[in-house]
Amino acid sequence: MDIKAYLEEKRGFIDSYLKSYFETLSLPLQLHDSMKYSLLSGGKRIRPILALASYEACGGDAKAILPQAAALELIHTYSLIHDDLPAMDNDDLRRGQPTNHRVFGEGMAILAGDALLTEAFLMMTGGNPPFPPFTKGGNTEKVTKGGDREMANLSNQKSEAGFSVNTKAISPISRSALLKAIRDVALAAGAHGMVGGQAQDILSESSEPNRETLNFIHLHKTAALIAASVRIGPILANSGTKKLRALTRYGENIGLAFQIVDDILNVEGTTVELGKPVGSDSRKNKLTYPSLYGIEVARQKADEYMAEAIRALLEFLSEADPLREIAQYLVTRRN
Amino acid sequence: MDIKAYLEEKRGFIDSYLKSYFETLSLPLQLHDSMKYSLLSGGKRIRPILALASYEACGGDAKAILPQAAALELIHTYSLIHDDLPAMDNDDLRRGQPTNHRVFGEGMAILAGDALLTEAFLMMTGGNPPFPPFTKGGNTEKVTKGGDREMANLSNQKSEAGFSVNTKAISPISRSALLKAIRDVALAAGAHGMVGGQAQDILSESSEPNRETLNFIHLHKTAALIAASVRIGPILANSGTKKLRALTRYGENIGLAFQIVDDILNVEGTTVELGKPVGSDSRKNKLTYPSLYGIEVARQKADEYMAEAIRALLEFLSEADPLREIAQYLVTRRN
Repeated sequence: MDIKAYLEEKRGFIDSYLKSYFETLSLPLQLHDSMKYSLLSGGKRIRPILALASYEACGGDAKAILPQAAALELIHTYSLIHDDLPAMDNDDLRRGQPTNHRVFGEGMAILAGDALLTEAFLMMTGGNPPFPPFTKGGNTEKVTKGGDREMANLSNQKSEAGFSVNTKAISPISRSALLKAIRDVALAAGAHGMVGGQAQDILSESSEPNRETLNFIHLHKTAALIAASVRIGPILANSGTKKLRALTRYGENIGLAFQIVDDILNVEGTTVELGKPVGSDSRKNKLTYPSLYGIEVARQKADEYMAEAIRALLEFLSEADPLREIAQYLVTRRN
Repeated sequence: MDIKAYLEEKRGFIDSYLKSYFETLSLPLQLHDSMKYSLLSGGKRIRPILALASYEACGGDAKAILPQAAALELIHTYSLIHDDLPAMDNDDLRRGQPTNHRVFGEGMAILAGDALLTEAFLMMTGGNPPFPPFTKGGNTEKVTKGGDREMANLSNQKSEAGFSVNTKAISPISRSALLKAIRDVALAAGAHGMVGGQAQDILSESSEPNRETLNFIHLHKTAALIAASVRIGPILANSGTKKLRALTRYGENIGLAFQIVDDILNVEGTTVELGKPVGSDSRKNKLTYPSLYGIEVARQKADEYMAEAIRALLEFLSEADPLREIAQYLVTRRN
């Protein structure tokens, strides 16, 4: 199969969905701009693509879960914005552009991250962009344009919108599956997963290199959300334990391989390829695979994880070919 | 009725739930401490109590929705932690204690907020504290105690946990209602609500006082989540549009009254009562009701909103008495 064409097509689905969703929202201008700046800046969309590919491997039609897949990109983007902050990794460059806080300021960057994370859970409940919840005045457009209306009038301007919950906005996927997916993604994204990994990461910058800690960081900071992206396929397709278990094993292993390759690229890549400074991990005294094991062993380890990921797919036939190809792509990529 | 006893009882439910939930979690120590520091520091628990009271007014048993009610407190707490950051309001004191970032540092405070927000959505899906999603090594306790195990062993230590989604953890509330509640809370908490209001708030510190903007900020930053806390009652009880509409009107109005009283207390209260410095709004050139209208008009307006809130409950009988009493309590409180 032509994996490049496959990735391109799926990325197109996600990008279109994100673009049209965010263009219809009515939000305070600077917050809106800050959210779009990081979200629509041309990421690889690996997590949503994994979700779509995994759902297809379970017999589903990818387009049915675009909102849930796209929500994973919102979570990934929020994590990048917050990780780049001065109080965390203090990075100035991301995907070849100034980081969010360098453009919009730290306060707005924190809020844009908070807003993306919250919007992700909103998005997971169903596909349609929401209407504003409150109608007692406080119109976004008016405020952001600096308009002024008398307060006394505002109380009379309630419409019916916001008084009922728009049930049509709930996705056709079974509600039970949606709830499981929300729970699973929250588990992978929060303190039990990605945020826990990032906490351990910033605590470890000044401490002794330690293999157990490195493994904890990689599993939680990176592999957790990647595995959840894969797991969302069988969860939303109601595929049962056997497939869920196989795809979890696949997801964990490509997640670990992905992070090791990231670490290697940070040593060996070029700034143009990466869109961020090479060698920044080492300057920050980050705990990484290359720093602990050397490049050669790190590369070997990535290949092993990749092979284990592909072995996990044994019970799947050609419907999992995209997942197999993606595993290989992730360890051979240059950015 | 004895509203003080009522509030005390309900607060006891919430505090016990939060305490036992967070004590059973296994998380990186400093992150865990940072989350608990702000969450278990003795807030009034207004939002969860409103949720319980509103659910009771719709004929439900408060204890059935403890997780969903408590989740609102996690969202409120995360918003306080992030609002207090140097890049936002730069506050040193909260509830009489040093703010989160003063104790744990800015990076950890940002992560604790992120983790609480994410955990809130996890909590909303059901009651039980979660098990860790990943079992491929990376044990939390071991890492946080600085233990070390060989990487080769870790791959063999997968257990079955994490490979299936614990469906027993899903609440007995109807799944459709849970999804609606998650969607409604996300709408109120994110860019369309609270985060949007906070964004407008920090943008407005340096701009001309403007009634429309003040109204926007109060509605979004404060009233949105308070109204959502009230709305969760009829949503989870499947009460239908009429009650949802009445309780939305109640919630919006007490939310607005609540914020005006907050602004007044920031001028007139004492540091001991408030647990934070008096007059900080004015020093930061914050747009507030007293600064725009003067104390007298502000107090009048708060009373008007309170009266409108109580009028919204006309169709309810004594089952809404706690909500009526809470409205009065909110405008007469001293902290």
